[in-house]
Amino acid sequence: MTLTSTALLTGGPVVPSRNLLRPLGPDEVRISGGFWADKQQLNATVILDHCETWMERIGWIGNFDRAAAGAVAEHHDGIEFVDSEVYKLLEAMAWELGRRPDAALEERYSALVARVAAAQEPDGYLHTAFGRPGQRPRYSDLEWGHELYCFGHLFQAAVARARSGHPDDVLVRTARRLADHIEREFGEGGRDAICGHPEIEPALVELGRALGEQRYIELARIFVERRGRRTLATTLFQGSDYFLDDVPVRDARVLRGHAVRAAYFTAGAADVAVETGDDGLLAAVKNQWRRTVAHRTYLTGGIGSHHQNEEFGADDELPPDRAYAETCAAIGSVMVSWRLLLQTADPAHADLIERTLLNAVLVSPREDGRAFYYANTLHQRELASETHDDELSERAEANLRAPWFEVSCCPTNVARTLASVGAYFATADDDGVQFHQYADLDVDTALPDGRHVSLAVRTGYPFDGRVVVSVAEASDFTLSLRIPAWSRGRARATLNGEPLPVDGDTLRLRRAFAPGDELVLDLDTSPRFTVAPDAVDAVRGTVAVERGPLVLCLESVDLPDAAAFDRVRIDTGAAPTPTADGASVRLVVEEGQQSESGDGSWPYRRLDAGAPVPFGRPVTADLVPYAHWANRGPSLMRVWIPAAG
Amino acid sequence: MTLTSTALLTGGPVVPSRNLLRPLGPDEVRISGGFWADKQQLNATVILDHCETWMERIGWIGNFDRAAAGAVAEHHDGIEFVDSEVYKLLEAMAWELGRRPDAALEERYSALVARVAAAQEPDGYLHTAFGRPGQRPRYSDLEWGHELYCFGHLFQAAVARARSGHPDDVLVRTARRLADHIEREFGEGGRDAICGHPEIEPALVELGRALGEQRYIELARIFVERRGRRTLATTLFQGSDYFLDDVPVRDARVLRGHAVRAAYFTAGAADVAVETGDDGLLAAVKNQWRRTVAHRTYLTGGIGSHHQNEEFGADDELPPDRAYAETCAAIGSVMVSWRLLLQTADPAHADLIERTLLNAVLVSPREDGRAFYYANTLHQRELASETHDDELSERAEANLRAPWFEVSCCPTNVARTLASVGAYFATADDDGVQFHQYADLDVDTALPDGRHVSLAVRTGYPFDGRVVVSVAEASDFTLSLRIPAWSRGRARATLNGEPLPVDGDTLRLRRAFAPGDELVLDLDTSPRFTVAPDAVDAVRGTVAVERGPLVLCLESVDLPDAAAFDRVRIDTGAAPTPTADGASVRLVVEEGQQSESGDGSWPYRRLDAGAPVPFGRPVTADLVPYAHWANRGPSLMRVWIPAAG
Repeated sequence: MTLTSTALLTGGPVVPSRNLLRPLGPDEVRISGGFWADKQQLNATVILDHCETWMERIGWIGNFDRAAAGAVAEHHDGIEFVDSEVYKLLEAMAWELGRRPDAALEERYSALVARVAAAQEPDGYLHTAFGRPGQRPRYSDLEWGHELYCFGHLFQAAVARARSGHPDDVLVRTARRLADHIEREFGEGGRDAICGHPEIEPALVELGRALGEQRYIELARIFVERRGRRTLATTLFQGSDYFLDDVPVRDARVLRGHAVRAAYFTAGAADVAVETGDDGLLAAVKNQWRRTVAHRTYLTGGIGSHHQNEEFGADDELPPDRAYAETCAAIGSVMVSWRLLLQTADPAHADLIERTLLNAVLVSPREDGRAFYYANTLHQRELASETHDDELSERAEANLRAPWFEVSCCPTNVARTLASVGAYFATADDDGVQFHQYADLDVDTALPDGRHVSLAVRTGYPFDGRVVVSVAEASDFTLSLRIPAWSRGRARATLNGEPLPVDGDTLRLRRAFAPGDELVLDLDTSPRFTVAPDAVDAVRGTVAVERGPLVLCLESVDLPDAAAFDRVRIDTGAAPTPTADGASVRLVVEEGQQSESGDGSWPYRRLDAGAPVPFGRPVTADLVPYAHWANRGPSLMRVWIPAAG
Repeated sequence: MTLTSTALLTGGPVVPSRNLLRPLGPDEVRISGGFWADKQQLNATVILDHCETWMERIGWIGNFDRAAAGAVAEHHDGIEFVDSEVYKLLEAMAWELGRRPDAALEERYSALVARVAAAQEPDGYLHTAFGRPGQRPRYSDLEWGHELYCFGHLFQAAVARARSGHPDDVLVRTARRLADHIEREFGEGGRDAICGHPEIEPALVELGRALGEQRYIELARIFVERRGRRTLATTLFQGSDYFLDDVPVRDARVLRGHAVRAAYFTAGAADVAVETGDDGLLAAVKNQWRRTVAHRTYLTGGIGSHHQNEEFGADDELPPDRAYAETCAAIGSVMVSWRLLLQTADPAHADLIERTLLNAVLVSPREDGRAFYYANTLHQRELASETHDDELSERAEANLRAPWFEVSCCPTNVARTLASVGAYFATADDDGVQFHQYADLDVDTALPDGRHVSLAVRTGYPFDGRVVVSVAEASDFTLSLRIPAWSRGRARATLNGEPLPVDGDTLRLRRAFAPGDELVLDLDTSPRFTVAPDAVDAVRGTVAVERGPLVLCLESVDLPDAAAFDRVRIDTGAAPTPTADGASVRLVVEEGQQSESGDGSWPYRRLDAGAPVPFGRPVTADLVPYAHWANRGPSLMRVWIPAAG
C-alpha cells in the first residue's frame, strides 16, 4: 500500500496509510461473546457511567460549562489536565457507539460534546485551565501545563467518532479548529517548543490520517523531531530524561524516564516514521522497544518500575514489590506493540499485547467495574487499606482499587481501551486474514481484490486453549493464526478433523475454503513454571506460574493459614495442575525463620563457610489470575514465589 | 540520677539529666589518633571550609546579610530551609572548636554568628525566608516551610557552643530569644500546631537541658504530644504518615514515613520521655525502634528504602538497588540509638551505632572530603555519571558523590557528626567507665564520688580487632568494654598477660587498677559471610561479606573483567580471606545468561518441573569497605552478591 491523501474513515484507533497489515474496523470484526464480550459489556454498562458520574460530581465536566460562561477562571475543579479525562471518556463512548449503537448513550455523548465544544474559543484554542484573565497564559507552562496533551486526547476522541460513521460530528469539527490553531502556534515559524507530556504526537498523526490532512502529520513530525534538545526546564527531581527530552529519538537506546510519556511518545514516533517512510526513525523505535521489552518489562507486561517520577528503572531493575507498572503505561505499551505489529507482522508483538492486556491492563478494574488500580504491584507485602466507593483517592498506592483519583488518568484509559479492544484481534492483508488474539469473533471483510472473507471464531480463551474457526462463506484466501510463544512446539491443529502441521509462531493455511470448513487449534494452556533472567536480581530464587496467557498469583486468602504467607516456598518438583481459572501448586511452609527475626533485634546472621545457603510443612494452594487479585478484600499477594530449596 | 534544674554545660550533643549512663564530654574523652582522628582531621581541614565556601558562593549565608539589611524579600537564595545548613555548619564549628581550639576557626565562627544574629527580629523570630513584606507570612506553611526545623538546628548549634565553654555566646543568647518567641507562639494558649519536619523536639529538650530551662523541655513535650492528630495538610503524594502525623507517638508500632523526619522525631520523643520520666512513652519508642531495626534497616545500618518521599518501605522491603538510605537518616538512626543506649545500657544499641557510623554515614563523604552521597545505594547497576566539583547537583542520585546539592542537608550533617563523634565512644556511671566504640582514645574523668579514671585506648580498629587499654592512674573502678555481636564467643582478653574470661556482650572488670595495667581485648575481625532473613526478598540467594564492623562490597573496578560484573556469583564454600582493608573472595563467572537474554526479546523462560532452578569460570576478587566505594571513578557495586549454586 502507498501513502494516500484519502481520509481513512474506517478502522480502529490506529489506521496507518501503509503497513504490512491492515487493522479491521468495528464493522469488520466484532467480539460476539465470551471473556472479552463480558469485559466490553462491563465497560458499556458500568465503567462509562462510573467515569461520567464521577466527573460530573467533582466538577471536571462542569469546568467546560464555566469556561463557556466565562466563569472558569474563578472556579476550576481538579488539576490542570482534567480536560483530558473528559476526552478519554468521549473517546470511549464514541468507540462504544460505533461498536453497538445505543440511543441513550448517543444522547449522553452528544450532550457532553456540546458542553465541550461550547468552551472552544474563537481562534480554536480549547482548554479550561489556561488563557483567560485570571488564569495562567496559554503555553506559559509547557513542562507541566499539559495543554497539548489534553488536545491530543480530544483528537483521539474525534478520530473515534469520525471512524464510527460520523465524520462531520461536532467533536470532529472542534478538533479540526483546534488542530489548525496548534499548527499556527507551533508549526514552522511558530513557537519552537514541545509539550512536557507527549500525546499530541500520535494524536495528530491519527487525526491527519482520519481527516486526510497531511499538515497534521507534518506537525506531529515536527514535535517528534523537536524532542531531545533539553528545551524543557528541569526540576529538582525531574531531569530531561523524565520528559524524554534528554536525547533525540533517533539517538536513544531504550525507553526511559516517565513510562507513560515514553510509551506515548514512542507510539507517535512510530506513526510518524510509518507515514513519512522514515526507515531510520522506525529502526530506532524498534531497537528501543526491543531493549525495553528485554530488560525493562515485568512478567505481566507492565512497564515503569519506579514510584519516584513514575519512571523506568535501570535495565533489569524490576522489583515486584515496588513495581509501579502504571495501568496507563501498560496501555501505552499496547499502543507501541500494535503499531510495530502492523508494521512488521512479527507475532512477538502480538504475544506482548496479549500478555499486557490480560495481565497489566485488566488488573486495573475491579470485577464490578467501579474501582481501579493506578499502580500495579506484583507483590503486596502488607494488607492494603480498604477504600470507600464514594471517596476520592489521593494516592495511587497502598490501598485497594479506588473509585477515582485526584490524578485519574487510568479509569478513562481503561474505558477507551476496552471499548476499542476488538481492533487488536485481527488484521487483513492483500491475501487474507490474520488472527493475533483469540476471542469469540465474527469477521466479515473484503480483501483489496474483492474476495470476501466471512469467519467465526469460538473459544474458551484465555482459560481454555481450544480455538475453533468456522468458515461461513466460500472463498480462496490465507488464514493465519498466531501460535503464542508459550505454546510453540505444543500446539496442535486440525482442519475438518484432519491433522495439520503446526510449527513456528504462525499457523498459516492457504486454500479455497468452503462454507462449514472448521479449523481447530489447540494451544497448550496447562499451567507452567516461569523463571526470570538471573539479571533480574529482585526475583532471584523464585518462580512464577503462568497458564496460557495468564500470569497467576498467590493470594494469602487462598492459604489455609494466611499468617504463613511470608513463609511459603513453592515446590517446583511437581508440575502445577489446572483449576477452573488458575492452578494448584504444592507449597512448603518454612518454620522458624519468623521466630528468629520476629520482632527481635538485628536480623542478619552469620553463615559459616561451607554451610548451605538456607532454604517444613507441605501444603497446596490455588493460584488465581493476577488480573483477578484483590477482588476478595485485602490480601497479601505474590506473582514471584520463592522456590523451595 | 534525678531530674535537676541545673544547666548541663558539659558533655556532647545529648546530656540527659538522668540515665543509666552519663556521656563524656570533649574535656573527658579525646580521640588521639588513628582512623577516627583522620576523619576528624579531614572534617576540620576540608569539610568545614567546603561547606562554608559553598554556602557563601550560592548566597545561603548572604541571605542573613540581606535579611539584616531589609533586602532579603527581594532576593533570597535557595529553598526555604537553607538557614538550617548554616546552623549545622555552626554546630560543627562549635564542636570542632570545643575539641581543639583554633584561632582562625574561632574567628570564622564568630563572624558567621554575628551575621546570623544580625538577622534576628526584635521579637526573637529568625528566619530568612518568611515574615517580611513580600515574603510569605510567618507560620503560614507549617507543612513545608521548615521554620521550626531551622530553629531546631540553631538550637543544636547553640548547645554545642554552650557545652564547649561558651554559655554566654552570641549564638546562645540568640537561641534563647528565639526559644522564648516559640514558647509565646506555640506554647499553652498559643497556636495548636506542629512543624512538618521534626527537629524542634530534640533541639528544645537539649537547649532546655543545656540552659537549665525546663520551659523548653515542656514545649518539646507539647510538640511531641501534638503530633499524630492529622492536623498537617496532606498532598497528592504525601499522606499523614509521611509527616509521622498519622498516629500519636504512643500508639505507633514502627518508624514510618519520611525516614529523617521519623528518626529526628523519635529522638525527640525519647528525650521528652527521659526528662519527664514518662515510662510509657519511652516503652513506645523502644518498641518502635526494635521493630524498625529488625525489619526496616539495611545491613549498613541505613534506613529508608523508598526514593519516593524518602520514606520507609514496608517491613522487610529492603531493595539494595533502590536503597535510598539517606545519609541524614543514618545520622538520625545514630541519634535514636545513642539516646536508647544511654537509657538502657544495652550494647545492641552500640552495635548499631558502630555499624551505622562506619558504613551508612562514612559512605557519604568522598575520601577527599569535597563531595558527598546523599542517597546511598547498596547496589550500583549502571555506571554513575561523573560530577564536577564546581557544579551544584540537582539530584541526590544517579551520579557520583557531588560537592553540593540544591537540598544539601547531608554535607553539614556529616560535618557536625564528625566534629562530635567522640561523644559516642565512652560513658561513665556511678562505678566506672564504659567503652562502646573503639578508637585511639584518652579518657580522663571523675566518678560522682570523686574517684578519678585516667585511661588510654590504642587500636588499629576498625581494620584490626586488637584493643589495648592502659591504665594511667591508680583507681578502683569498673571498666566495661562492649563485645560486638559479630565477635561474641570469638573474643579473647588478657590483663597484664593473664587470660580473662570473656563471654556475653560485655567484658566487665572491677578492681583496683594500678598505673601501667594493660587490658588487651582481641576481637575477631576475620571476614565472614552474612545472610539476610528470608523475608528480605530482594536479596534472596545472595550473601554479603563483613569484616569486623565493616560491610564490604564488590566494585567492578576490582574484577579482572569489569564487563562480567553482572555474571559473578560468590563461592561460599571457601571462607573469605583478609586483605589490607577488606577481603578476598572466590567468585564464579556465569556464562551464557548474557547472550540468552542479551538484547533479545522476551526475557522470561519456561522451567520444566523437576529441573533445577538455574545457577563457569572461577576468579578471585578483592572486596573493599562499603564506605570506601566509588572513590576510584564510576564503578558498578554490590553489597549483596548472588551465591553460586
